[in-house]
Amino acid sequence: MPKVHFYPDNRVVEVENGENLLRTAMLAGVHVNASCGGSSTCGKCRVIVEQGKIEAKHTAKLSADEIAQGYVLACTATVNQDIEVRIPVESQMGDSKAALDRELETVSYAGFLSAKDLSELFGKFTINPATKRLYVELTPPNLEDNVSDLERLRRELNRRHGVADFNVDISVLRKMGGTLREADFKVTATVLSLGGGECDRLIRLDAGDRSSKHYGLAVDIGTTSIYVELVDLTTGETLAKASEYNAQVSCGEDIISRIVYSLKKDGLQKLQQLVVDTINKLIDKVVEKAREKVQVEIDDIVYMVAAGNTTMTHIFLGITPRYIREEPYIPTATFTPTVEAKELGLKMPDGARVYTVPGKASYVGGDITAGLLASGVFKSEKLTLYIDVGTNGEMALGNADWLLSCSCSAGPAFEGGSIKNGMRATKGAIEQVRINPATLEPMILTIGQARPKGICGSGLIDAAAELFLTGIINEKGRFNIELDNPRIREVDGQGEYVLVWAYDTAIKRDIVLTEADLDNLIRTKGAIYAGITTLLDSMQIPVEAIEEILIAGGFGRYIEVDQSVTIGLLPEIEGEKVKYVGNGSLLGARLILLSREAKNIAVDIAQKMTYLDLSTNPTFMDRYVSALFLPHTDRDSFPSVMRRMKASLSA
Amino acid sequence: MPKVHFYPDNRVVEVENGENLLRTAMLAGVHVNASCGGSSTCGKCRVIVEQGKIEAKHTAKLSADEIAQGYVLACTATVNQDIEVRIPVESQMGDSKAALDRELETVSYAGFLSAKDLSELFGKFTINPATKRLYVELTPPNLEDNVSDLERLRRELNRRHGVADFNVDISVLRKMGGTLREADFKVTATVLSLGGGECDRLIRLDAGDRSSKHYGLAVDIGTTSIYVELVDLTTGETLAKASEYNAQVSCGEDIISRIVYSLKKDGLQKLQQLVVDTINKLIDKVVEKAREKVQVEIDDIVYMVAAGNTTMTHIFLGITPRYIREEPYIPTATFTPTVEAKELGLKMPDGARVYTVPGKASYVGGDITAGLLASGVFKSEKLTLYIDVGTNGEMALGNADWLLSCSCSAGPAFEGGSIKNGMRATKGAIEQVRINPATLEPMILTIGQARPKGICGSGLIDAAAELFLTGIINEKGRFNIELDNPRIREVDGQGEYVLVWAYDTAIKRDIVLTEADLDNLIRTKGAIYAGITTLLDSMQIPVEAIEEILIAGGFGRYIEVDQSVTIGLLPEIEGEKVKYVGNGSLLGARLILLSREAKNIAVDIAQKMTYLDLSTNPTFMDRYVSALFLPHTDRDSFPSVMRRMKASLSA
Repeated sequence: MPKVHFYPDNRVVEVENGENLLRTAMLAGVHVNASCGGSSTCGKCRVIVEQGKIEAKHTAKLSADEIAQGYVLACTATVNQDIEVRIPVESQMGDSKAALDRELETVSYAGFLSAKDLSELFGKFTINPATKRLYVELTPPNLEDNVSDLERLRRELNRRHGVADFNVDISVLRKMGGTLREADFKVTATVLSLGGGECDRLIRLDAGDRSSKHYGLAVDIGTTSIYVELVDLTTGETLAKASEYNAQVSCGEDIISRIVYSLKKDGLQKLQQLVVDTINKLIDKVVEKAREKVQVEIDDIVYMVAAGNTTMTHIFLGITPRYIREEPYIPTATFTPTVEAKELGLKMPDGARVYTVPGKASYVGGDITAGLLASGVFKSEKLTLYIDVGTNGEMALGNADWLLSCSCSAGPAFEGGSIKNGMRATKGAIEQVRINPATLEPMILTIGQARPKGICGSGLIDAAAELFLTGIINEKGRFNIELDNPRIREVDGQGEYVLVWAYDTAIKRDIVLTEADLDNLIRTKGAIYAGITTLLDSMQIPVEAIEEILIAGGFGRYIEVDQSVTIGLLPEIEGEKVKYVGNGSLLGARLILLSREAKNIAVDIAQKMTYLDLSTNPTFMDRYVSALFLPHTDRDSFPSVMRRMKASLSA
Repeated sequence: MPKVHFYPDNRVVEVENGENLLRTAMLAGVHVNASCGGSSTCGKCRVIVEQGKIEAKHTAKLSADEIAQGYVLACTATVNQDIEVRIPVESQMGDSKAALDRELETVSYAGFLSAKDLSELFGKFTINPATKRLYVELTPPNLEDNVSDLERLRRELNRRHGVADFNVDISVLRKMGGTLREADFKVTATVLSLGGGECDRLIRLDAGDRSSKHYGLAVDIGTTSIYVELVDLTTGETLAKASEYNAQVSCGEDIISRIVYSLKKDGLQKLQQLVVDTINKLIDKVVEKAREKVQVEIDDIVYMVAAGNTTMTHIFLGITPRYIREEPYIPTATFTPTVEAKELGLKMPDGARVYTVPGKASYVGGDITAGLLASGVFKSEKLTLYIDVGTNGEMALGNADWLLSCSCSAGPAFEGGSIKNGMRATKGAIEQVRINPATLEPMILTIGQARPKGICGSGLIDAAAELFLTGIINEKGRFNIELDNPRIREVDGQGEYVLVWAYDTAIKRDIVLTEADLDNLIRTKGAIYAGITTLLDSMQIPVEAIEEILIAGGFGRYIEVDQSVTIGLLPEIEGEKVKYVGNGSLLGARLILLSREAKNIAVDIAQKMTYLDLSTNPTFMDRYVSALFLPHTDRDSFPSVMRRMKASLSA
């Protein structure tokens, strides 16, 4: 791994081959001015490469003379060997020494739990989806051999593939005679193995050999966002991904408001339609994307695995979520049957089926089950805290032997909901933020290094932590308007900080973080923190005993542990104990889509898990109120934050 | 059993207690004039009871004086003890001696295979339908016991009824939360056991205790007629029956014309709609009838078993019958899945299911399977010929060890189709006919002894046989117009015989039998006879080897073996070998509705049976053409008919 030595800070950091130089500086705790998120439009991140060579894109922002002197725009440069880099004074815009003092260690990102790790989790994990596509060539009937079409098909499926004992959808029979004859009796049978005491089913019959065209969809139905992955069920490869806000957001931001909406006349029907509309839109998107590589036909997408919280899956299946909200908070079902995609209105072919990952209780759904599966908690020896930082704020504590789960209704802040310039973690979202404590100038990086459009979850954590550490906001999230800086201002009696000036954005408006945003963020992080501590205390387990924290959620790739601790989202914990799972629910859905064994494990998890109902927990509300400060009312629980604050403010 | 002695014929007959006196006379071969079918309106069947007492209704047709002399109308009188009866000259209208000479033996009706016999067939036959209705009272949930509604239900179903392992319809889940709470958690679960490797399913959940309200429908879907029986699945009792012409008749009389119709644009859909419309109408009827005894709700009718020929079941299920008609005549399926009643458009509640009895081939359907089940052929030691004299003319030969089936496309004559005054065997249908060879006057009896409306199958056999024996028609079914009798006439160049004059009918038109009717009848009986002989010859079995002939079909209670042999419908066979099953298809459907064991036997029968395709059989067509005479081209095969003819014509 190449080493990068920064001057004048005199800091050294090792990075992966090919790492971006601006990101490397951030990792090293070195401040370089950067206003455009790394999109090479502001031209501010000028650095001089003094030793070694670096790849950098040509830019009009630098003169030939400057290039000869070794100048590059850090955001365009890729580290491939050991180099020495000097940050010129103009790129520091102040005293970079302050940043150095503030934190002696380099930044500790939450390690990423990669897909590679996951396949290792399953040992002999093989692709074994619930559906099979079997090609057969039947001998056409004649007067001597005149068994029925179905019998003829069964005979050949048994002979060629050992599949004889199956039931058949009436919709398949309705077309069978025509399909067989038009296809010259050469057909592909799609057979679904449901397991759980159910007979196999013939769900489709298609002309010709389509056995290698076998696709499925993994879907995460979040309260705020929906993610869809199109998966090749032969190779296991993900062909395309897409995500989108859940169109139900127009009917309310959180679960409770959705349930309230569902009680209106035709409310449930409308909500069901909205979630299906969103998924259908995403199906179109992933198919279109995948077609850049493979000619995917909708008719070959025969199976879907969907994970979501219990309210979302109830609505998706057309089951009223009403009793989830009424004491004693009972869902209709945590295990739901596999249904026909058509029956739900999904843009999938006749016969295609939808399996919904089982959950545990009204507020712990299949998304947690899927996450616990995908992240390997179900077989971990380590005492693990798994947190899905979604709108519903579900989490679980435990290991291979036991699992205790709860939910704390966090709100949508980390997905961009209830935040003025909030957005999901997609291209153009600010995902990393540093603020120079001396100049109060930001250094920002966006996903895809595109012109900034808004702030995603990880950017929000970063920004709030930096605002707090630099004294721009106080422990209640209120702005110090006294500070004389154009980025700190009051609008309509409310303080805000300008992260990006309009001319550097893609949206041609200032991207700001407001007091209202911070209020929402604090409520969100407070609920999660209160959930964590209630869960731990109910098992009489101290924070230090946690061996691993797994964070799931769609809020961006770079979650910095220190920053998360700084705002009091996570308790004080060593950085290396924290890992980011990404969208655990989606990951789990994909595994279940690919493997019947994974599905069985998910069923086991949902059955084994126990549930702690925070809505009736006597201490949760107290803990929540105490957590509505940065980092927390009880500062003694956050010694490292106090240390960092002191260092930063003394700069 | 009381003995009835008729004078002047000097004939004695034994009858069941309560037998009608007019029917007794017919049984004894004694002619009594009777024009109104036994409805006591014509007043012609006057007889004198000379010894013994008889119950008879009061009638204005007899004077007080006559009554004092012992006069009664035979049609109103019921035999309860030994009596002596004299037929006065005016009621003979001719020389009754002729009838006496014509046939020395009394009439041999095909014995009736009663429901009692059937239950004996099954040895330890117990009521064990595919559906169960289980009442449970759940403990309402609370904060400590907060499992999902489904789990709570499963727990209690397991505790009370040992039913834990079941899947659930999504439609049930959609209403479960509301139903449980509105019903105070006291509910009835309807669970379907499909067998055949399928998991049990919860198909309905109803408020309160409906465990004793458990109903099902047995349905026979004939090409011409549809029969529906409403059965109490707790007691096994049939609560009501109804039948109706299949509304598809408007699209063609036989299977082939239906298939042709199905190929038109929306043809299949229309045919499916028509058959479902007819069944729905019949469901309404049976529910209404049943309500005279029991308060049956449609919502409690949870299961249907339907039997029909392969084309009918294909159309019923919405499967194209197209390839049944195209060489090599292949059905899509002979075993079809259990489907939701709603899916077919049936007037049954959500969750209700429909099972279709499996058949064997394109022209041997579930109606034959059901008949072979119900008539006990599947376990008979006797070599049995089972004939379903429906439009499709299906039959099977064999016993417990083997079964060979075929179909001969007979046409709808025996169900009243293609017959000018034809009708199904319902109230007012002429079911028995005698014609006095001397006077050519008829003696008729109708079903329910109501005013005649038309002629049903058994009446048609009788009438044709009598017309032939009395020389009114020749062996080609042509009328002898030379005979000077007002009942024999020519209309538009076509001969006909007036069975009932308009003033004695319920329809206020003469009820006649025309040459065209006879042509259709001859084709129908010819096809069946050709089927029988082809089947026998293919196994090299002579007629004499048949130990039992079972006749099924909805053509009336009184099938006279001799008359059937006279027209060449049946081969020459001893009367006691022939039994009438009634509607075997409906009977079998009812057994399957009541018993999962019976269903398994039906599956075995359909699998074990072999099929002889007459449409490609080289000898069938020759046999058919030879059979287009009364009784047959080969008169030597019908010695008893020749004997009877001679006796009759010499009268």
